[in-house]
Amino acid sequence: MSLVVDNIGELVTNVAGSGEGGPLGIRRRVAVLVEEGEVAWIGPAADAPAADRRIDAAGAAVLPGFVDSHAHLVFAGDRAAEFAARMAGEPYTGGGIRTTVGATRAASDGELRATVRRLHAEALRQGTTTIEIKSGYGLTVTDEARSLRIAAEVSAETTFLGAHVVPAEYAARPDDYVSLVCGPMLAAAAPHARWIDVFCERGAFDADHARAILACGQALGLGVRVHANQLGPGPGVRLGVELGAASVDHCTHLTDADVDALASTRFDCMCADGGHTSTVATLLPGAEFSTRSPYPDARRLLDARVTVALATDCNPGSSYTSSMPFCIALAVREMGMTPAEAVWAATAGGARALRRDDIGVLRPGARADLIILDAPSHLHLAYRPGVPLVRQVLHNGVPR
Amino acid sequence: MSLVVDNIGELVTNVAGSGEGGPLGIRRRVAVLVEEGEVAWIGPAADAPAADRRIDAAGAAVLPGFVDSHAHLVFAGDRAAEFAARMAGEPYTGGGIRTTVGATRAASDGELRATVRRLHAEALRQGTTTIEIKSGYGLTVTDEARSLRIAAEVSAETTFLGAHVVPAEYAARPDDYVSLVCGPMLAAAAPHARWIDVFCERGAFDADHARAILACGQALGLGVRVHANQLGPGPGVRLGVELGAASVDHCTHLTDADVDALASTRFDCMCADGGHTSTVATLLPGAEFSTRSPYPDARRLLDARVTVALATDCNPGSSYTSSMPFCIALAVREMGMTPAEAVWAATAGGARALRRDDIGVLRPGARADLIILDAPSHLHLAYRPGVPLVRQVLHNGVPR
Repeated sequence: MSLVVDNIGELVTNVAGSGEGGPLGIRRRVAVLVEEGEVAWIGPAADAPAADRRIDAAGAAVLPGFVDSHAHLVFAGDRAAEFAARMAGEPYTGGGIRTTVGATRAASDGELRATVRRLHAEALRQGTTTIEIKSGYGLTVTDEARSLRIAAEVSAETTFLGAHVVPAEYAARPDDYVSLVCGPMLAAAAPHARWIDVFCERGAFDADHARAILACGQALGLGVRVHANQLGPGPGVRLGVELGAASVDHCTHLTDADVDALASTRFDCMCADGGHTSTVATLLPGAEFSTRSPYPDARRLLDARVTVALATDCNPGSSYTSSMPFCIALAVREMGMTPAEAVWAATAGGARALRRDDIGVLRPGARADLIILDAPSHLHLAYRPGVPLVRQVLHNGVPR
Repeated sequence: MSLVVDNIGELVTNVAGSGEGGPLGIRRRVAVLVEEGEVAWIGPAADAPAADRRIDAAGAAVLPGFVDSHAHLVFAGDRAAEFAARMAGEPYTGGGIRTTVGATRAASDGELRATVRRLHAEALRQGTTTIEIKSGYGLTVTDEARSLRIAAEVSAETTFLGAHVVPAEYAARPDDYVSLVCGPMLAAAAPHARWIDVFCERGAFDADHARAILACGQALGLGVRVHANQLGPGPGVRLGVELGAASVDHCTHLTDADVDALASTRFDCMCADGGHTSTVATLLPGAEFSTRSPYPDARRLLDARVTVALATDCNPGSSYTSSMPFCIALAVREMGMTPAEAVWAATAGGARALRRDDIGVLRPGARADLIILDAPSHLHLAYRPGVPLVRQVLHNGVPR
């Protein structure tokens, strides 16, 4: 079935140099033809080919679907009471993760599946057409494997995070837990995972443990991502760079050496956007919002020509939002990003953080993942905070 | 037609003392019977009477619809570019109001009506069942009157804000503009308005002008509200108290004398909630978010036992959000409110700011304005920022 989205007022292509707005590659008064789940043609609305179905965008802005490259959707229970206590002054230490681990282990497959599907659908309604999903609330061989199996039912971007925290039963012998993660847990998880991730932070895993775990995952063909420098300065970012990580995530507390390390992964090229860093800095402002912490300094990273992505960190403890527009608005208000930079980071940036070139972009051959806004411009995603502005979503070319 | 909302997990009644949660009066496992647009009965789910229609809340939280007591919906044009420039560092001075005045005057009735109805519907979808609408972008006799006529088509809570700014054509003779506002403009506007409001701020109207205008409105039977202390300290709050205003709005820059003046309007009573201030402090955190300004200190007001409301300030210049949940999340993150205080302020607080006792509350005889969340608790409105959590809205007892 073919489909044409017609009467587009502003099309954000993220093909740098193909229109206005620099990296956003904005084209006006165009149509997009979709065939077999892919973008088949983009051109002036007046030249739009015939198609089996037509969607009239009525002059609205159309963007690539959001790419949320960091989310923890496989869990049970909710931590609303912990949230309320934190807002009354208790600090966030990450300790509540163990609460969710207990609830997740106790849940049936059906309960976990229902939560994953509910949040996946909720994200899709809000325009997120790709969402990475991590394990990390099971922390046993069986529970990590089933978490990833359930995640893989709805997303190809699954990440093994057995090294989220050391579970209580291993508190006295973390080396043994690392051996478990690198051995039987990884073996059971890897068939369902594309990525491996470690929470490299004081109170979770130090650089040596993190390096060992990530290297084991790499040996099995998994790509590397790192939870790094969220709660304080630390070795996570530099470790990610050392291992060629696709992304280091959070980046709230960076030294100049961390920024330099990220910038050093830059590959310049003759392409229109001038190149990118091979390790992306993925910023998760929902976590700072919901833990009342200082925000990461996106401007500093952008000025150092580090490639930046935005993601939700959706999880029941520190950031229970699934809204990419909310993250865009925060990035503009709090992190020194322009609306255009934030929109790019939430689409093309997320795609780079997942090393994908078929999403986060609208050009012939790309996946037909796109959103039609209730607004004439991408600027409205930051200009109208909190308002559900995504009118319609096409996922793999199918209207949802 | 009668309707029963059944299987409610948590009902926020805002009837203090009728359940848990202090002022929220939370009841669990109850049903609500609706007849002729009003709440007819609330009781244990097991005792729910028969009704023509049944809505299964499936264990979710049900709250009174949001009462947005401060919004500017009658305008033309958009100021997304001004927003983007401000985010790049330009300060907010209120000067852009004149841009919107020009566009509004040039617009047809049909264009203004379409915008009002679009935003009204957008707010209703997000759970706002009462929304106050101000004029203030016409600033001629004809344009203010038609703004209010159009606003009154969708809301009973209309406010004459001819004294928003002095329009350019009167810049050299503000006294003449005040005479126009108090004379023919007020006469033309009053039949369509319940309230009168003045932007009492440096660069807009000083205390003497504001007092004169508000007194003229009072003489015609309009209730008083004041835009006060948004951009800096000033006389607005104390003027509002002096005139018995229902609400002073913004309250971003308050002296101790301002807080004392508000607290002095408190009436203590034998009622379960212990009483309230007759002048409500309405806080509008969307404006601080979108102008990157410091937030008002809600905690200080609450600790002084001043009644606080939350509203959106929805307008194209300084706060183009229509989302009350977004304002709740900001109030908790940034203004020292607990989730319960913020939810109360966005419902019952807004009702008090409009001097209404039939809305913002769920008890027999109240208007059947209620919302069913995609969540088990009111806490989720702050805990899940940015996520559209309002699953269903009943407005005057009618499902929307």
